[in-house]
Amino acid sequence: MTSIDLNADLGEGFGRWRLTDDEGLLSVVTSANVACGFHAGDPATMRRVCELAAGRGVTIGAQVSYRDLAGFGRRAMDVPPDELAAEVAYQIGALEVFARAAGARVAYVKPHGALYNRVVHDAEQAAAVVEGVLLAGDALPVLGLPGSRLLELAGKAGLPAVREAFADRAYTDEGTLVPRGREGAVVADPEAVVERSVGLALSGTVTARSGARVEVRARSLCVHGDTPGAVDLARRVRQRLEASGVRVEAFA
Amino acid sequence: MTSIDLNADLGEGFGRWRLTDDEGLLSVVTSANVACGFHAGDPATMRRVCELAAGRGVTIGAQVSYRDLAGFGRRAMDVPPDELAAEVAYQIGALEVFARAAGARVAYVKPHGALYNRVVHDAEQAAAVVEGVLLAGDALPVLGLPGSRLLELAGKAGLPAVREAFADRAYTDEGTLVPRGREGAVVADPEAVVERSVGLALSGTVTARSGARVEVRARSLCVHGDTPGAVDLARRVRQRLEASGVRVEAFA
Amino acid sequence: MTSIDLNADLGEGFGRWRLTDDEGLLSVVTSANVACGFHAGDPATMRRVCELAAGRGVTIGAQVSYRDLAGFGRRAMDVPPDELAAEVAYQIGALEVFARAAGARVAYVKPHGALYNRVVHDAEQAAAVVEGVLLAGDALPVLGLPGSRLLELAGKAGLPAVREAFADRAYTDEGTLVPRGREGAVVADPEAVVERSVGLALSGTVTARSGARVEVRARSLCVHGDTPGAVDLARRVRQRLEASGVRVEAFA
Amino acid sequence: MTSIDLNADLGEGFGRWRLTDDEGLLSVVTSANVACGFHAGDPATMRRVCELAAGRGVTIGAQVSYRDLAGFGRRAMDVPPDELAAEVAYQIGALEVFARAAGARVAYVKPHGALYNRVVHDAEQAAAVVEGVLLAGDALPVLGLPGSRLLELAGKAGLPAVREAFADRAYTDEGTLVPRGREGAVVADPEAVVERSVGLALSGTVTARSGARVEVRARSLCVHGDTPGAVDLARRVRQRLEASGVRVEAFA
Repeated sequence: MTSIDLNADLGEGFGRWRLTDDEGLLSVVTSANVACGFHAGDPATMRRVCELAAGRGVTIGAQVSYRDLAGFGRRAMDVPPDELAAEVAYQIGALEVFARAAGARVAYVKPHGALYNRVVHDAEQAAAVVEGVLLAGDALPVLGLPGSRLLELAGKAGLPAVREAFADRAYTDEGTLVPRGREGAVVADPEAVVERSVGLALSGTVTARSGARVEVRARSLCVHGDTPGAVDLARRVRQRLEASGVRVEAFA
Repeated sequence: MTSIDLNADLGEGFGRWRLTDDEGLLSVVTSANVACGFHAGDPATMRRVCELAAGRGVTIGAQVSYRDLAGFGRRAMDVPPDELAAEVAYQIGALEVFARAAGARVAYVKPHGALYNRVVHDAEQAAAVVEGVLLAGDALPVLGLPGSRLLELAGKAGLPAVREAFADRAYTDEGTLVPRGREGAVVADPEAVVERSVGLALSGTVTARSGARVEVRARSLCVHGDTPGAVDLARRVRQRLEASGVRVEAFA
Repeated sequence: MTSIDLNADLGEGFGRWRLTDDEGLLSVVTSANVACGFHAGDPATMRRVCELAAGRGVTIGAQVSYRDLAGFGRRAMDVPPDELAAEVAYQIGALEVFARAAGARVAYVKPHGALYNRVVHDAEQAAAVVEGVLLAGDALPVLGLPGSRLLELAGKAGLPAVREAFADRAYTDEGTLVPRGREGAVVADPEAVVERSVGLALSGTVTARSGARVEVRARSLCVHGDTPGAVDLARRVRQRLEASGVRVEAFA
Repeated sequence: MTSIDLNADLGEGFGRWRLTDDEGLLSVVTSANVACGFHAGDPATMRRVCELAAGRGVTIGAQVSYRDLAGFGRRAMDVPPDELAAEVAYQIGALEVFARAAGARVAYVKPHGALYNRVVHDAEQAAAVVEGVLLAGDALPVLGLPGSRLLELAGKAGLPAVREAFADRAYTDEGTLVPRGREGAVVADPEAVVERSVGLALSGTVTARSGARVEVRARSLCVHGDTPGAVDLARRVRQRLEASGVRVEAFA
């Protein structure tokens, strides 16, 4: 039986500000990418999200970022590798406290925003992220884009490299993402997102923007949590997956 | 044989800025209160200090603080208890990553600056700090002022409560510190500091500002690291203690 | 003809996070307390809010705060007076750039959150806020609670001291606010808020929690902007004031 | 008579941390690039440096930076242009308060660190900096590298574009700086720095790393303030310039 993981970004508020519907998403996803304080996520929120996730049996991952609250981690930064590695480890360690206190553990690491995009191609920063994960010990799995330098280097370092796909993003014929900002980069129609999810899970393929069918093998699907209707859409994706005979379960 | 611990604040730079002579102090002290990023201490510095400390066999403690880089943690803050507890745990967890990576562990917790002073009398914040330590697991010892609410509540919660004394601070007849800012609050003469250290270690007493001899039983002496000549003075204290038959060793 | 000002907090998002319905509130109020970056308010938001306010003829005020993004400025802090004065001036100056660029000026100063409450009684911090306003030049009016040390010291320093009232807060028989957290501290019924607004504007009185009628003379009414339905309630308040013959206009 | 300006970075501490010898440098330079809080520079320090500068007749400039305390503004960041423009304006406005309070004005703008280097080639960010300066009004001069996109776009926007040179940096045959990190990028010998300063001022030329004499016309020389002996070296540069018949005076 085919199985797939559903992951979403959680705990992306900060202090007085909220962004993600953490309770709603935790009723749907199997893996929670918890913000660790560098782009979002204050300690009290991290604690609360870990408690909720552990209570629902949702796997906890560290969503690590550049240090950039003002830019929500969406500003690519030339952080020297030794500093970046230490910043990644710092965030993992901080989250681990709350995961443990909730009776769970940090089970994987996923870079956020500009760092996520940067380590697709930037070997130096990708290596720094891997070093940060290694510093944190426990050989944690790394979640990222298929074909990215991050997953390549994580694998070489002995870390499980877990591939993810995006049901609401358009793909090129080469199986890469159409950059945000390009026309048609985001799939807006909910039904299309649901169908693409099933296709990705069952056949490891998706219809590219050109109409061609391309291979995108992924162990996890990312559902977005910061848009109106996000939880409903995620729930529809999950229900259709299960109705199609796909087992929805965490990879870690 | 009498034994005493020497602790000092370390890693209190941030990014481009340095404050403490970390290498110098680590050649003298037995316990390092490592800044965890909230009043000072960037991740790369935390990593470096933990590596140096572990390499020298110096015990690593988490120096936790209010979130206040601009004020260096010296501005008392009315942080709600649940937020304060989570902030304390966050800092301990972040440091733990670097301690472990260096082959050591975070072995105790000491509040910094305004938080240190506040939890002498403020039971609500003292309880929040204790809750933060408990969240971090491992029942870590807490280092603080004898008679403080912090040590009282730590003890009640089952955490080792470790008393510290200050050889360079004046004491009242009741065995409490003369507040900074009052005349004679700080003992400036190095030889006097050295002598007071020996007295505190050997007899558990110190000469109060009034001239009376008062009891101050402490398991650790705090030496300051951010003043010119700090390392030399700490070294003289250690040498005189050892020459006086005191074993200088970590409490944890 | 009686006139009253309506003020509200605006621009209280930060980066990715939004809190206040700035456009909605600017269609109702006559004075905008714009967050200046210390508790909320990134530069791009400050610019946008100033442009919107100037475009609608709404007066711009600097909503100054403790430096505390994580606590949204709601954590009282023991900031040394010289630092607090400089922090206040810094915020006013930063906002002034955007007010001027929009063809307007910063026309008054209002402390936010914990600082607002602190300077009701704390003469040292109140004096520091006044010093900060004086540093910023232009003898700007200060908006605050009647009877507060802030208004007292502002007046002594030659700054216009502008009194404000809260239609949605309960008052004591002495005309002071019932502290938040006490039962009945907040008036939840919209119609009651509307009626109290008219009473405050027309007669300078309000019904205290005890049922007694107490005097609360204010030149400005604060309407809250961070709750659901805030804009609608503010609009109802304004409409009823105008229907009652009160001219709603900025004080500055 | 030939004249030249000497500029240096000042006020680059933050809270408890100090970096630059502000008093020493202000006794030598004619233009002070004052840090504005984004890479360094707390409000109280900004106030103090402005008072010292104004008291000595040293011209005050805003040293604007990416928002990056942890990286001291040395991490290049992909800040969206509208955000960058607003951040630049915010910093200028904040400093203007302290310049005015000291009886002076912000007289020019100079980008710091990674932003300085980025706007040499990045037209989008250079345009954003220019927009930020324009937002701040007063058509302030912009200080930067000859040939940079920043100076080109500043000039097109009607802002005085002021060229600066570095006596302690090696130049290529094309008159550009040898990148830091390359061998020989920094001129370490103080006497060589002094001689190069005189050559730059008198003849608008400097000996390139190849030995060739290249043209570098500059209205200002940057002297570094964050190295041991910086003030002494700056003083020697100034004395030799004056002894060589060069008038050392601010450009603004």
